[in-house]
Amino acid sequence: MNAEEIFRNIKRKKSFLCVGLDTDYKKIPKMLLHTEYPVFEFNKHIIDATQEYAVAYKPNLAFYEMLGAAGYMSLEMTVTYLRKHYPDLYIIADAKRGDIGNTSHMYANAFFKTLDFDAITLSPYMGMDSISPFLEYDGKWVILLALTSNEGSKDFQQLYLGEKRQLFEEVITVSSKWGHVNNMMYVVGATKAESLTTIRQMIPEHFLLVPGVGSQGGSLKEVAEYGMNDRCGLLVNASRSIIYADVTNKFEDAAKQEASRLQSQMEELLSKRSLI
Amino acid sequence: MNAEEIFRNIKRKKSFLCVGLDTDYKKIPKMLLHTEYPVFEFNKHIIDATQEYAVAYKPNLAFYEMLGAAGYMSLEMTVTYLRKHYPDLYIIADAKRGDIGNTSHMYANAFFKTLDFDAITLSPYMGMDSISPFLEYDGKWVILLALTSNEGSKDFQQLYLGEKRQLFEEVITVSSKWGHVNNMMYVVGATKAESLTTIRQMIPEHFLLVPGVGSQGGSLKEVAEYGMNDRCGLLVNASRSIIYADVTNKFEDAAKQEASRLQSQMEELLSKRSLI
Repeated sequence: MNAEEIFRNIKRKKSFLCVGLDTDYKKIPKMLLHTEYPVFEFNKHIIDATQEYAVAYKPNLAFYEMLGAAGYMSLEMTVTYLRKHYPDLYIIADAKRGDIGNTSHMYANAFFKTLDFDAITLSPYMGMDSISPFLEYDGKWVILLALTSNEGSKDFQQLYLGEKRQLFEEVITVSSKWGHVNNMMYVVGATKAESLTTIRQMIPEHFLLVPGVGSQGGSLKEVAEYGMNDRCGLLVNASRSIIYADVTNKFEDAAKQEASRLQSQMEELLSKRSLI
Repeated sequence: MNAEEIFRNIKRKKSFLCVGLDTDYKKIPKMLLHTEYPVFEFNKHIIDATQEYAVAYKPNLAFYEMLGAAGYMSLEMTVTYLRKHYPDLYIIADAKRGDIGNTSHMYANAFFKTLDFDAITLSPYMGMDSISPFLEYDGKWVILLALTSNEGSKDFQQLYLGEKRQLFEEVITVSSKWGHVNNMMYVVGATKAESLTTIRQMIPEHFLLVPGVGSQGGSLKEVAEYGMNDRCGLLVNASRSIIYADVTNKFEDAAKQEASRLQSQMEELLSKRSLI
């Protein structure tokens, strides 16, 4: 999938919503616990309930790894289900990997071939040769951590190199030369909306994956104001606020309602910029 | 396991060798390919052949994830095998994770409870709240990336913050306050041996995990010269040079020979410092 195709889906669905599948076994409604792969069953219901409002899904690997081989099966089944039933959706492995070249080749193989993800989140700390193996797959994407939504982003990402330049800016400037607008995105937390202006000056055309709207308190309106470009250029992720909107047997309706609420807001923001 | 126990094992085995289990399915001798879990079978043979010369083993997660659920089973079986047959060995998950707090809690659970690893490698980019959930487990360790052995370590790790301080130094200084010498180590590549002097001034007592000896070309002698402290303070990793020393049915003997060769050199270096 290239940037134009992502934008086409955004226009069609009037939404730039990414649903984060941070599926916590302990929060799955009891009615699904008797099934062989409850995590997959839960995801399936969430996907069916929310897919008309979303353009992307983002399983968070930690939640699957926690369950061992059974978790891995649920992950594999989730990706297969998405591919089969909703082929237009963009599927992101929220994995935050990054290792020396020969190991990164293995990870790329794991996420782009063994599993058929469209994109993977990566950490920039180990530099170019830890990222470039992922850029060798046609139509697949690297989503690089730049400025994350958590408190700890202050510890290193926001440090100054010289007087005016912060580490996350250096990461964006340097790494944007490793790929192009059709195979690289950046993670910028919604809790850092004011920084989006600076980031948009550096990379006006790249897509940004923006977590932190919802449970983490970021503002969708501000994200759109500072981060939207003429192809939208945003995928905004919400996880917990959608998938755990209700934890009883009404979870599907509640998830649908919350996804629909976010989609309406997004539609308004896209309209305002005359993108739809 | 605490630092004193690791040192006790180093003295007993006259070795500070960590064997990296970067087990590539494609390099497994044909004689093992008929088994249900060839990666586990290979690991078992390698472990049995090398364990008298090593104090630690380090499965590299990428190589297991590449194989999907079957890979995960092999990983689980490898950890269980090590725990059961060689309970003194220190087992490191080379995973290079790091995510927001609630996700890091999940990863910690995955690696320290679902699987019984002693330690996990983590990337510092997301800061304190991405690391601290791993420090809540008694006897378990965080091994933080500081200065890695690859070419890309120049891109960000070696950038200067102000005139004298490089990013990896800031990472070490800041993060060493998050934990202590019994629950934090640092990754410093053997290809950066000259930097060990500076690092030892900052953290004289912490253990360092040093990859890059062997296939990557780092020098064991230099690593010991600049990095050894009065409890040894080093775990030196070799992966490919041991486990693929031979890829025919003589792989066990060849792995044993290479591990034994490294152990002899380590014994000499420990003797020279009067640590054994």
